[in-house]
Amino acid sequence: MENDKCVVLLSGGIDSATALWWALERFKEVHALTFTYGQRHALEVEYARRLAEMAGVAEHRVIDLSILKDIGGSALTDESMDVPEGEYPPRGTISTYVPMRNSLFGVVAGAYMEVKGITDIVLGVHASDVPNYPDTRPEWASALEALLNAGSSLAFDGKRRIKVHTPFVGMRKADIIRLGLKLGVPYEWTWSCYSPKDGWPCGRCPTCVQRAEAFRELGLPDPLLLRLEKEKKEVET
Amino acid sequence: MENDKCVVLLSGGIDSATALWWALERFKEVHALTFTYGQRHALEVEYARRLAEMAGVAEHRVIDLSILKDIGGSALTDESMDVPEGEYPPRGTISTYVPMRNSLFGVVAGAYMEVKGITDIVLGVHASDVPNYPDTRPEWASALEALLNAGSSLAFDGKRRIKVHTPFVGMRKADIIRLGLKLGVPYEWTWSCYSPKDGWPCGRCPTCVQRAEAFRELGLPDPLLLRLEKEKKEVET
Repeated sequence: MENDKCVVLLSGGIDSATALWWALERFKEVHALTFTYGQRHALEVEYARRLAEMAGVAEHRVIDLSILKDIGGSALTDESMDVPEGEYPPRGTISTYVPMRNSLFGVVAGAYMEVKGITDIVLGVHASDVPNYPDTRPEWASALEALLNAGSSLAFDGKRRIKVHTPFVGMRKADIIRLGLKLGVPYEWTWSCYSPKDGWPCGRCPTCVQRAEAFRELGLPDPLLLRLEKEKKEVET
Repeated sequence: MENDKCVVLLSGGIDSATALWWALERFKEVHALTFTYGQRHALEVEYARRLAEMAGVAEHRVIDLSILKDIGGSALTDESMDVPEGEYPPRGTISTYVPMRNSLFGVVAGAYMEVKGITDIVLGVHASDVPNYPDTRPEWASALEALLNAGSSLAFDGKRRIKVHTPFVGMRKADIIRLGLKLGVPYEWTWSCYSPKDGWPCGRCPTCVQRAEAFRELGLPDPLLLRLEKEKKEVET
């Protein structure tokens, strides 16, 4: 393989965890980046740390982008806005979308890649999010790749192409989990919920509903809930 | 005019100051964004504040992006690297290039625009910087525009196109100043130097050399130096 290093954007959720294990199969040296941005569900960052450790990445960097909270415009960063409940709407940006968040993550990753001389980046974007999050669409990933190439010295001086990998672009959540189970992703250490309470998912926000539906479709219990229930019992006895 | 608001990226230098006065002629409401990122020449931010005040912008936001210093890779943010002296080299990225800086500025501006409902952004990028800074090229500006449209809810929900204006894209520094003098840009309050000392420009770094050449070409003294000399005399007498 020409390029043996990559960066994975790791939120701590199902998709990015699967992207990380997907990358481990393909690249010799995997770097993971996680972002804190004043998100309600900062608990996901602790899950990301655990996942990065379990994956044995070359480097896991947790980067502060609280500018996203300062700029606002999202229920994920603005406590005065409510997180919606129930299924995702069929089409349209949802209040849990964070303006330009994924573009910002991609560009900061681009700076990291440039300094480290890494040309490959893996994103866990997928079809289930496309109707509600503009910055998960295939055309968004292509535009990010074009910007990373146009604005970086890697391509300018070295004629090295930056490649944005989106292996799950045509897949739904259940398909991703099916693949991830084969790859050995520890889903008991992935976090999705936007409104965690005492370390438990709420079960009502759109990402909880989407996650539950995906495991139901596969006929499997959610390994995260199994683990939390087991830990609870251990404490009680 | 359909769109009556815009954002200008204002560093405090000649190009962005001229972009600001250019925007004042075309938009009813002008917002300015300035970034601090651990740059050596943080003095430029004070100049940007003064310019924004003189221009009477609707809002001037100074945003911290010290993540750029943390990631490093540039003589502008890494004190252990020397700022080069003399003219810009004919071609190739220079050490004063900051990895992904302008892309990051553009995307953060995109988040601000999305929250404010602004679809137009003005950048002072120009031909004199193209050989040495990949993120000032016309193809970079086009790629930024494509990403802002692909990754934002403005275009996704509202079908509103985001437009990146680069009025100086084919112009050299002297051409920009010639235009700016007609627009009334107060060049005595613009800052370029990468290595300021006691409030004075060094006169040796590439951007000082480029600035001096531009004023020489126009047969004019640099208004910044005139002002600093005048102030110095006033203090002495």
